[in-house]
Amino acid sequence: MKKIMNDATQIVTEMVDGMALSYPEYVKRLDDLLVLVRSQEESMTNKVGLITGGGTGHEPASAGYIGEGMLSAVVCGQIFSSPTPDQILAAIQTADHGKGVFMIIMNYSGDIMNFDMAREMAVMDDIDVRFIVVDDDIAVEDSTYTQGRRGVAGTVLMEKILGAAADSGASLSEIEALAKQVLPNLKTIGVALSAATVPEVGKPGFTLAEDEVEYGVGIHSEPGYRREEMQPSAKLAEELLARLNDEFNFTPEDHYAVLVNGMGATPLMEQFVFMRDVLNQLADFGVQADFTKVGNFMTSLDMAGVSLTLLKLREDQWLKQLNYPVNTIAMVRK
Amino acid sequence: MKKIMNDATQIVTEMVDGMALSYPEYVKRLDDLLVLVRSQEESMTNKVGLITGGGTGHEPASAGYIGEGMLSAVVCGQIFSSPTPDQILAAIQTADHGKGVFMIIMNYSGDIMNFDMAREMAVMDDIDVRFIVVDDDIAVEDSTYTQGRRGVAGTVLMEKILGAAADSGASLSEIEALAKQVLPNLKTIGVALSAATVPEVGKPGFTLAEDEVEYGVGIHSEPGYRREEMQPSAKLAEELLARLNDEFNFTPEDHYAVLVNGMGATPLMEQFVFMRDVLNQLADFGVQADFTKVGNFMTSLDMAGVSLTLLKLREDQWLKQLNYPVNTIAMVRK
Repeated sequence: MKKIMNDATQIVTEMVDGMALSYPEYVKRLDDLLVLVRSQEESMTNKVGLITGGGTGHEPASAGYIGEGMLSAVVCGQIFSSPTPDQILAAIQTADHGKGVFMIIMNYSGDIMNFDMAREMAVMDDIDVRFIVVDDDIAVEDSTYTQGRRGVAGTVLMEKILGAAADSGASLSEIEALAKQVLPNLKTIGVALSAATVPEVGKPGFTLAEDEVEYGVGIHSEPGYRREEMQPSAKLAEELLARLNDEFNFTPEDHYAVLVNGMGATPLMEQFVFMRDVLNQLADFGVQADFTKVGNFMTSLDMAGVSLTLLKLREDQWLKQLNYPVNTIAMVRK
Repeated sequence: MKKIMNDATQIVTEMVDGMALSYPEYVKRLDDLLVLVRSQEESMTNKVGLITGGGTGHEPASAGYIGEGMLSAVVCGQIFSSPTPDQILAAIQTADHGKGVFMIIMNYSGDIMNFDMAREMAVMDDIDVRFIVVDDDIAVEDSTYTQGRRGVAGTVLMEKILGAAADSGASLSEIEALAKQVLPNLKTIGVALSAATVPEVGKPGFTLAEDEVEYGVGIHSEPGYRREEMQPSAKLAEELLARLNDEFNFTPEDHYAVLVNGMGATPLMEQFVFMRDVLNQLADFGVQADFTKVGNFMTSLDMAGVSLTLLKLREDQWLKQLNYPVNTIAMVRK
């Protein structure tokens, strides 16, 4: 294992410092905590605070999405580990500007437990805190660290929509209702070409043969649903779209947002080839792709592979919210 | 070799199609060529056109930087291969809006030959074409495909500065003068942890031992200047900064732009740890870092490693140009 780091036990702290040093106009570190908060303070006045967090290793998620039009604060756990309740509470307190705080939680048991504990502590401080548990990964039911379905890259689209709503002055109840409306329309599935190596572990989370892929692997190397020989990009797209079609039942004139997400080590070139195949096949289904993004949004350290997220656009407003201007480290204007 | 693709000989065409399909609001493909041009046509009226190009495999460079405030058009060669003069000519013709075209060429012999041939053809069309050859890589003098020094990630900062000038209405002569002023202040050096694999070749361009790094490797796997055992991030930063200091002779109160660039397979987490070490050491030199960016800007397919670019900010205007708002696929607002 070769990784650019100093001490595996300090890597998260040093990353958080690196982000704050590199982008002081976007984020600042909260005291000695592993919490990054929005620097553009005036942009949060009189608005609902929007926070998320979870294990580190998925960059730019989620601290790269802190800023106007998206998140207020992000709590960084150790690598692939939930942040602690005291740190989450600090993020809630900082993000609260009198209109309450909404938490976007990815569906991992440890995260749910710790975010809920923090919420209970915040309630004692008279802060109104609501949340959504994102479980967009359709690959498997229940998993190594999850009851039900896992939360993965679709979370970024949820953050974009809720961020636009919060920035536009939506109330906590309105944001909660919006999140609940969006969630059942948000589905993701991925394929891994190689596993991630956690620095403190020093070896890959699983092993694939030289010419093998695994469908449905989780972002912490949780098992997927099938291994087979590597396929051409168009065949990979066909497999993932077939699974998504089982959920959505594609109908001509349906409108979707489409996100192709690189897992960390897959070149953008390959992601664009894959997106081409996805969009061509969606066109064959007669489906409209109204919002499309390609890139590394929710990675898994140095894993090679991609995930494909579809959001069925049931409301015109969701598309406007996806296109709402943001000002963050890692998300371009749209 | 596992790559998400269909046919290695079609990968560039399919990538170009993928970009145009995914981001029609930013780029469109020119006829059947491997040329991507800016969709926001009205933003180019009465302005100097700014083009670049070169081999594919460095995404998001350079098509990801097409848009308001940056590039007008980009010519994509085959992987790690120069684009042909006819395609470059088509990009020049499209980018010309009556005020001429400026070409940003990275210093590779094939690119220089082909861009110069295209320029000569354009002159016959009465288009005024000027250019700069970017040779920011201080690792080695002369290289596999280069006389002098290679052009690498510093090119992105050049594109940002010249893009701002062009968008602000600078003339072709002013842009040429600005490029010549910036160039000697722009220096880059990198370190590779692994080599890139070209799809049609199917095996890595070189081999490093499990615990070995190579300093100064080029973005097409050209040899660097030294191999040694993997070092902690702070030591890697020390080595690269020492080489840059040989060029710049750091003096307290000097002002720099600092770009940490991932080579493709290196997680953002590691890049931020590395940037932390770089910024801490620059602070020890008493040097000011006024503009800082971290991410995958000029990659080399699936190579692991980072490069470090410094631009000495001799003019206040350069910092303003670096912060000039852009609207592109891969470069955020600043």
